[in-house]
Amino acid sequence: MASTETSTTNDFSGGKTAPESGYVVPSRPPPNLFLLDFGLRVLLFASAVSGIVVMVTSKQTELIPVSVAPSSQIFFISRDAKFQHSPAFIYLVAALSVTGLYSIITMLVSLSSIASPSPSPRTLFLLILFDTLLAGVMASATGNAGSVAYIGLKGNSHVNWNKICNVYGKFCRHVGSSTAVSLVASIVLVLLVVLSSYSLYRRSR
Amino acid sequence: MASTETSTTNDFSGGKTAPESGYVVPSRPPPNLFLLDFGLRVLLFASAVSGIVVMVTSKQTELIPVSVAPSSQIFFISRDAKFQHSPAFIYLVAALSVTGLYSIITMLVSLSSIASPSPSPRTLFLLILFDTLLAGVMASATGNAGSVAYIGLKGNSHVNWNKICNVYGKFCRHVGSSTAVSLVASIVLVLLVVLSSYSLYRRSR
Repeated sequence: MASTETSTTNDFSGGKTAPESGYVVPSRPPPNLFLLDFGLRVLLFASAVSGIVVMVTSKQTELIPVSVAPSSQIFFISRDAKFQHSPAFIYLVAALSVTGLYSIITMLVSLSSIASPSPSPRTLFLLILFDTLLAGVMASATGNAGSVAYIGLKGNSHVNWNKICNVYGKFCRHVGSSTAVSLVASIVLVLLVVLSSYSLYRRSR
Repeated sequence: MASTETSTTNDFSGGKTAPESGYVVPSRPPPNLFLLDFGLRVLLFASAVSGIVVMVTSKQTELIPVSVAPSSQIFFISRDAKFQHSPAFIYLVAALSVTGLYSIITMLVSLSSIASPSPSPRTLFLLILFDTLLAGVMASATGNAGSVAYIGLKGNSHVNWNKICNVYGKFCRHVGSSTAVSLVASIVLVLLVVLSSYSLYRRSR
């Protein structure tokens, strides 16, 4: 990489280092990485939508046996498990919805920048700004839901929080998958920040 | 802002737009924002250290009344609440430790860059890269601990997770404060990303 850069600089004799040539030779434009950016945003959209769908369809109804005291007869009562029962899962669905909407808008921005020979620094800066904010929101929502899902899976004997995944298996699988997909979305957002700042870095050298 | 920029460009007749003058006039160097960067990193260090201290000192021992069946006599047993009882709080302490260490290292980087007239784009890019990673880790740790703290505060009647903050008041205050300070650290990291990318943006125009 470094050797390629050096030879390129020699070929083009970059404007700032050779002012004595009388006129400024335009240096090689920085690479346009918006095609990769667009691909990552499509992945972000896909993971946000699948995360929402998996979470929303997680409702499970189970018959819980309850023994009534005098005759020790056993009754079955029907109890639901759904994502609205925990604020953490509601927050995750909200964060995934915002991310999905955001990814649609920025896909359009990205698409309009693919055609241009060199990316606009203003666009890159704004993308870094909002991608970082969304990455923070998505990471916190993932941590939030993951932590509740972990207590549901393992319980916590110190405070008598019993595990529920032995009863509500399908619900737990859905919640776990949704959290995993949200983790993917968070990582994609961090990668997008790195990609945009790399473009800005290449442009500023 | 826009009018100032235009007049500046006219005054200096920036290198790229006026090649006919025969030599390249160096354009105004972008502002060095590393003093603000350094201040934010000091704040980051302070919040990480205070978050760790508050979380580690959260241990509380309470006597819990237990009635024993045959004679209905009431005994008191001693039960601890400490942060090691929940993986979420251990993760938060780990994330805060990493952030504290990272802030010390980057304070040195920032300090060495204050003196230079114009920030190095390579330094800015690397700072954005690692700040974004740390922001993701801190945001997820904050969400993690906040969600467990919320269940401790409010309980969750749907799955019979009882609240514990009515018994362990001091523990809950410490955990809540530590989570709030972690939120500050996450926000400072996001601000640092925005600041570095703004410097890079100003440089690349």
